[in-house]
Amino acid sequence: MLSAMAKPGRDLTAVFDQISAIGSQPGAGVTRLAASAEDGAARDAFARWMEGGGARIVHDEVGNQFACFEWAGKNVPWIFAGSHLDTQPRGGRFDGTLGVLAAGSAALDLHEEIRTGQFKPSRNLAVLNWTNEEGARFQPSLTGSSVFSGALPLHEALGLQDGSSISLREALAAIGVDGDGSAVPPRPEAYVELHVEQGRKLIEAGRQIGIVEGTWAARKIAVRWIGRAAHTGPTPMSDRRDALLAAAQGITAFETLIAARHPQLHRSAARIVIEPNSPNVVVERATVWFELRGLDVEELNAAGRAVLAAFELAAANTGTRIELVADTLRAPANMDPRMMKIVDGAARGCDFIPLIMRSVAGHDAVALQNSGIPCALLFVPSADGVAHHPDEFTKQEDVAAGLMVLRAALRDLVQRGYHAG
Amino acid sequence: MLSAMAKPGRDLTAVFDQISAIGSQPGAGVTRLAASAEDGAARDAFARWMEGGGARIVHDEVGNQFACFEWAGKNVPWIFAGSHLDTQPRGGRFDGTLGVLAAGSAALDLHEEIRTGQFKPSRNLAVLNWTNEEGARFQPSLTGSSVFSGALPLHEALGLQDGSSISLREALAAIGVDGDGSAVPPRPEAYVELHVEQGRKLIEAGRQIGIVEGTWAARKIAVRWIGRAAHTGPTPMSDRRDALLAAAQGITAFETLIAARHPQLHRSAARIVIEPNSPNVVVERATVWFELRGLDVEELNAAGRAVLAAFELAAANTGTRIELVADTLRAPANMDPRMMKIVDGAARGCDFIPLIMRSVAGHDAVALQNSGIPCALLFVPSADGVAHHPDEFTKQEDVAAGLMVLRAALRDLVQRGYHAG
Repeated sequence: MLSAMAKPGRDLTAVFDQISAIGSQPGAGVTRLAASAEDGAARDAFARWMEGGGARIVHDEVGNQFACFEWAGKNVPWIFAGSHLDTQPRGGRFDGTLGVLAAGSAALDLHEEIRTGQFKPSRNLAVLNWTNEEGARFQPSLTGSSVFSGALPLHEALGLQDGSSISLREALAAIGVDGDGSAVPPRPEAYVELHVEQGRKLIEAGRQIGIVEGTWAARKIAVRWIGRAAHTGPTPMSDRRDALLAAAQGITAFETLIAARHPQLHRSAARIVIEPNSPNVVVERATVWFELRGLDVEELNAAGRAVLAAFELAAANTGTRIELVADTLRAPANMDPRMMKIVDGAARGCDFIPLIMRSVAGHDAVALQNSGIPCALLFVPSADGVAHHPDEFTKQEDVAAGLMVLRAALRDLVQRGYHAG
Repeated sequence: MLSAMAKPGRDLTAVFDQISAIGSQPGAGVTRLAASAEDGAARDAFARWMEGGGARIVHDEVGNQFACFEWAGKNVPWIFAGSHLDTQPRGGRFDGTLGVLAAGSAALDLHEEIRTGQFKPSRNLAVLNWTNEEGARFQPSLTGSSVFSGALPLHEALGLQDGSSISLREALAAIGVDGDGSAVPPRPEAYVELHVEQGRKLIEAGRQIGIVEGTWAARKIAVRWIGRAAHTGPTPMSDRRDALLAAAQGITAFETLIAARHPQLHRSAARIVIEPNSPNVVVERATVWFELRGLDVEELNAAGRAVLAAFELAAANTGTRIELVADTLRAPANMDPRMMKIVDGAARGCDFIPLIMRSVAGHDAVALQNSGIPCALLFVPSADGVAHHPDEFTKQEDVAAGLMVLRAALRDLVQRGYHAG
């Protein structure tokens, strides 16, 4: 493989280090929430790098950032490749960022190959940075790719509010991202995304490249319990309607119930917002974001019915009432078989034997695939499977492997288009 | 009683309305957290009102605000009266504010009586606004009165941090409160505080005036569960160490255990801070503030031991570890018998038959009494017992009753000093 590694991608290490530093704190990973000042700085650095290599930068109305290489002319189909530059709070450096920058690096290499006549493109290429993939600041996640694919109306996305009641529209304006979508490429012929695995399957199998055949489904439920503010001291216990107690009972029952009846489902409650949040005031409102993930939609529906009943019981126990804030099902995606074959061919051409696998997490490629755009999702290993944590890490040789395969796949797609192989 | 009500207190209604508007939102009560911009505005309004009536305003190093009336000369003892102008988030208008403004109004009346020779003072009077009584922004509560009384070291108080890591020192400086304590009166001979009851006992007994004989004890425990951040999707369930699940189990077990074994204790978990707070990251750190209140310290200690064991169990169940962030016992206070007699005489002199009662909540008078300063705590009714809620309300005639009794008690103390009656 050493010969294949001789071309490590233009400036990838330098630009990766530059962008990794934006929002980074020693020991605390990277905090680059969607449409924050840090996200703005990362977008700018990415744009300067791409423009320096000949790309034209445009944004659509939800802030998706496109670095466009119009190699084949005005009226030919486009290929997209990319991921996202936003992170979780105290997140890792690789999640999302690697996919954007590897695609950018591959695009610069292909640009040079085309310029020097090494192959003739029949397609244009855009490198994508999708807005708010993480869903940390604004819920739901996959915001930009879901708007692009048509699954989420633009006005709903722009109206999403963060924990400080700032809308996505305001946040994007604050960092100067105000694309009107007029010069944005059309729906692409195909999309390729490289991402870190966030699990241990590649390492356990001794492979460097994973090809995702499909993803788990996810049911995401946000529930609000509403009680009544009161003094925590003199208020008689029988008068209290404590929304935090309701939420605690809800979270506890959720885990107990799913562990007992559906142990194979991945589940979590990872966000809670309570009002007020003072030690001396009985909590009036508690909102909790729950997730259930699994392969089988029927099982998720059964589990969802059971937990909603448990949440109602927590409300009844505590004299609170309950509001369903959100309840969405992300269907399990099956990635496009032709695209799997194309990236498989690219991997084998670089001497890798890829592992065909499923993804538990959602990615932008999943949102696009679910709207009918043929997508491929490539994985490289995550050390010890760690994700959404400062210790997230992917080895240099695995980054190089992913970049090689991604570049080969994009070269094939740009040259021949989406094909049957 | 009509004759006694003929003197409703100088400007009390006007200044009460003025200060109630600071931090007020329609339907959302008053939010005037300690050392916030709103607190600063309320302090300024109070200072202008008092200075207009002849008082000198000074601050000590923790921001306690003194409106000083040096009626009897330099080297005579001081009487203090007051309460606090800070509120809970979305709190009521009366809690604390009524006590400060009623004391200010009484002081202005007494000032006029002294000026016109109606009685000769033997004591000076200071009207007090104690810093951060509520403990909503900075924990623990009763901060200013505890520093003044010597129970809480000044440097500890100034180092307290709010949820945004802003210290009390920084917050006070930001609103321009930077007293060096040099002109502050000495420890007073006695302190009188008027407060709303925050319960229904006065209404149930058909009385307008309560005299507090003592308070419940309070045990306040803050616990942090520490897990590990991870992706909520792909991370295997067996690898997760979920601090929010631990906290939810802790809160649920706390209520179940105390309700079963110590049902007469008032208990609450009303503040939680989690990191990160993203739907897609397993929670790494969850800190919860618990309170237990009761008359019997032995029972609180037994209950405290039991709940700490339950918290440890929640940690063991979830693979998290636990840190004890705070564990304090506020002893039950017995208010000073002579002071009870003095305010009882004042009430009866105004034709009220006071109800002798206990307070579940702590008040600044409790912190001062526990340090040996003779204190009286007067209550007026709270409509339906509502407290720490926008609906908190005390009727105008009950306000007038409280003001009359407070003024009579202060007249007696300023004239004769702390006496055996």
